[in-house]
Amino acid sequence: MTTDTLLNDTLAAWDRDNLLHPTTHTSNHANGTTPGRIITGGKGVYVSDRDGNQFLDAFAALYCVNVGYGRTEVADAISEQAQKLSYFHAFAGHGNEPAIKLAKMVMDRAPDHMARVYFGLSGSDANETNVKLAWHYNILRGKPEKRKIISRWRAYHGSGLVSGSMTGLAAYHARFHLPLDGFLHTHCPHYLRRPDRDMTEAQHLDFLITELEAMIMDEGPETICAFIGEPAMGTGGLMPPPDGYWARVQEVLDRHDILLIADEVVTGFGRTGSMFGSQHYGLRPDFMTIAKGLTSAYAPLSGSIISQRVFDVLMQGSEDFGALAHGWTYSAHPLGAAAGIATLDLVDNLSLLENARDNGAYLQQALKDAVGDHPNVAEVRGVGLMVAVEFMKDPAAHEWFAPMTVGPQISEAMTRLGVIARAMPEGNIVGFAPPLSITRDEIDIVAKALRAATHEVLS
Amino acid sequence: MTTDTLLNDTLAAWDRDNLLHPTTHTSNHANGTTPGRIITGGKGVYVSDRDGNQFLDAFAALYCVNVGYGRTEVADAISEQAQKLSYFHAFAGHGNEPAIKLAKMVMDRAPDHMARVYFGLSGSDANETNVKLAWHYNILRGKPEKRKIISRWRAYHGSGLVSGSMTGLAAYHARFHLPLDGFLHTHCPHYLRRPDRDMTEAQHLDFLITELEAMIMDEGPETICAFIGEPAMGTGGLMPPPDGYWARVQEVLDRHDILLIADEVVTGFGRTGSMFGSQHYGLRPDFMTIAKGLTSAYAPLSGSIISQRVFDVLMQGSEDFGALAHGWTYSAHPLGAAAGIATLDLVDNLSLLENARDNGAYLQQALKDAVGDHPNVAEVRGVGLMVAVEFMKDPAAHEWFAPMTVGPQISEAMTRLGVIARAMPEGNIVGFAPPLSITRDEIDIVAKALRAATHEVLS
Repeated sequence: MTTDTLLNDTLAAWDRDNLLHPTTHTSNHANGTTPGRIITGGKGVYVSDRDGNQFLDAFAALYCVNVGYGRTEVADAISEQAQKLSYFHAFAGHGNEPAIKLAKMVMDRAPDHMARVYFGLSGSDANETNVKLAWHYNILRGKPEKRKIISRWRAYHGSGLVSGSMTGLAAYHARFHLPLDGFLHTHCPHYLRRPDRDMTEAQHLDFLITELEAMIMDEGPETICAFIGEPAMGTGGLMPPPDGYWARVQEVLDRHDILLIADEVVTGFGRTGSMFGSQHYGLRPDFMTIAKGLTSAYAPLSGSIISQRVFDVLMQGSEDFGALAHGWTYSAHPLGAAAGIATLDLVDNLSLLENARDNGAYLQQALKDAVGDHPNVAEVRGVGLMVAVEFMKDPAAHEWFAPMTVGPQISEAMTRLGVIARAMPEGNIVGFAPPLSITRDEIDIVAKALRAATHEVLS
Repeated sequence: MTTDTLLNDTLAAWDRDNLLHPTTHTSNHANGTTPGRIITGGKGVYVSDRDGNQFLDAFAALYCVNVGYGRTEVADAISEQAQKLSYFHAFAGHGNEPAIKLAKMVMDRAPDHMARVYFGLSGSDANETNVKLAWHYNILRGKPEKRKIISRWRAYHGSGLVSGSMTGLAAYHARFHLPLDGFLHTHCPHYLRRPDRDMTEAQHLDFLITELEAMIMDEGPETICAFIGEPAMGTGGLMPPPDGYWARVQEVLDRHDILLIADEVVTGFGRTGSMFGSQHYGLRPDFMTIAKGLTSAYAPLSGSIISQRVFDVLMQGSEDFGALAHGWTYSAHPLGAAAGIATLDLVDNLSLLENARDNGAYLQQALKDAVGDHPNVAEVRGVGLMVAVEFMKDPAAHEWFAPMTVGPQISEAMTRLGVIARAMPEGNIVGFAPPLSITRDEIDIVAKALRAATHEVLS
């Protein structure tokens, strides 16, 4: 089917005329300048559109379809629950079987010091829940002035008003009155982005910790509620933390009575090769944000896992003031919960943690072999099955390309070659985060497409 | 099954030990002081728990299961879509068939001046989207100082940090640092709650409009972005607006270039007897918030419907600055969209608008007949199938009971009689908002239970 046919048919017209898409160029879409792509099916790492095109999706949609597309185990679990009971609320102690079972499965996998999970819908809303409960915790402890949240530049924690305030990417702040007051950002922990080229890695790590502590002291530790971070950064560029970073951050936070929110939306349930990024890097969070891999996106579900010390204070809070005034109508939705149970079973049964470790290493090496010697490749980096290739004008001279030039071009060239890899925002970074079930043969196809696209764009 | 057995079995223990429930007494639930209730199935207006109890649910869970429980049409649509394609993202112009079809169906039903719908997950996140886009709209128009949002006391717009700021109930503010700066509340438009007993209804309406305009002038109209309101208030007590209220509010807003956000989460898709509350009361909103009735809660889906004049500015914004930086991973989720299509078809095919009108009037009369002559009944009020009975110590003397005393007791007594009606917060109000498919025989059962419970509690 040609582009003309696609542009002129009824469904595409309805799309242009009725639907406001997320993170899309509003006028180009409405005018049909950039025709939409309507996805109709998927199997394993492949998705297909209604025009008969097939793509190897090396980004698992938005690094969320971790068990791969078309898993009948998950679809069947959703169907079965929909027929039995699609919905009842979970307010005032009501519940449903799948939500309770999934809560047990999540807590069995979480670090031992975590106490309970609250289920929401999206990573954004779970991060908002975490901020709300962190504020509540300090108010209940008699420390209401402990309210500010420290995040990091290039962090991604959502695109709501509070979650977007914690995100550290300019496009999510500009023209939206964000960040809101009291949401601060410290440096991005990525050596390639060190402020001084001559810094060693050890000096850079010292710098990050010194700057964090300086921010805390400048603001006053008595005003800082929590630090939020992705164990390994995702949307900002798939950047594993510097060695030793988290242990030193944790030490600073503990010394100043500052809570740690680990945003595990991307890293949770196996992407790093460990169940959680917190375990992979030795974090000791008070809140863990989960979504994406929890259900592999088959149905919306997120979660806020809270620590025992936070839960103890919430318990006392309800003794003193009654029911916790927080809840979405669709908290602990039975369909999301059924999808979550089936997904976590598949993560175990298909040995997806091992696959993320082993084939993650294989993917990183394959991409290095494919483009590592290209003069514009500054870095091939990653952990488990989250890997990025970053392009620079002159890596040796530390000269950058203008943001969003080469990266998107390479991503688009790869799509034409039938492989989806994501151009990460505000840089020239091509990201790879395929379903955790990807095979080595499929990885070879990805690496080959990256090499061809790189040489096409940067010949 | 006795309470003891329920308390001691594995599933109940897992529930207590792992799941943090929404809007629940945290410690009583964790300790088992208030045993949970695990719902396992439903049909029509009835739900059943795993202990073999059945309840006539006269509140449609959280006034959301509008087509009733166990509708195979919706469950089948979810199953079919889950098997075909559970998920792909809608970023960068990507889409899926059910989301596009549902967008068309929603816009066909919305007022003519509305232009596009953005799909989210919950009413709370849709209200957050609306605030974000309203701020964006004014920034793009060169009016960044137009930023404050006016809501109303006793409003309910969600329990997030921004949506909870707009909610006008004390429990959602206290001990959470809410409302955030720039979120204001004007008076609750309910005659029973007039500040001066001697006011006539006409004087009360004048008072409401004068107070709103005074707030706008005190703050400066150039600082006010939007006014948010439920066409008929929901959680605050199921209160239809005073006659003529919306026309006069609209006039004030128009004169000061203030946007109107109509929160249709409860009123949307038929509850008032009209498709939307905006149509029922003649509002002309720039944003409409939809959720609940959109899918009858069978799968999570919400939406923000935006007007043509807002959309025109967003289009220019993307011409000037590129893609709109807003989007949840699960925006336009295929499962929610499939559930929405089947739900809106059922609303038409089962004539649920007509039923809401006709049986809504029947419900209101039946409740009046049942308890209208009771000396503690101050008001039986409502519109369509959202009806409330409010209790006072002495209605003639305008003396209130202490909040949350009689209302919750009557609701609990009704539950023991097998009928679920909700004690609305911060008052003594029993709320009725059953599935829109409820029959007159079923309404008679509800009225009978209310009468018995009222006489049990207030004998």
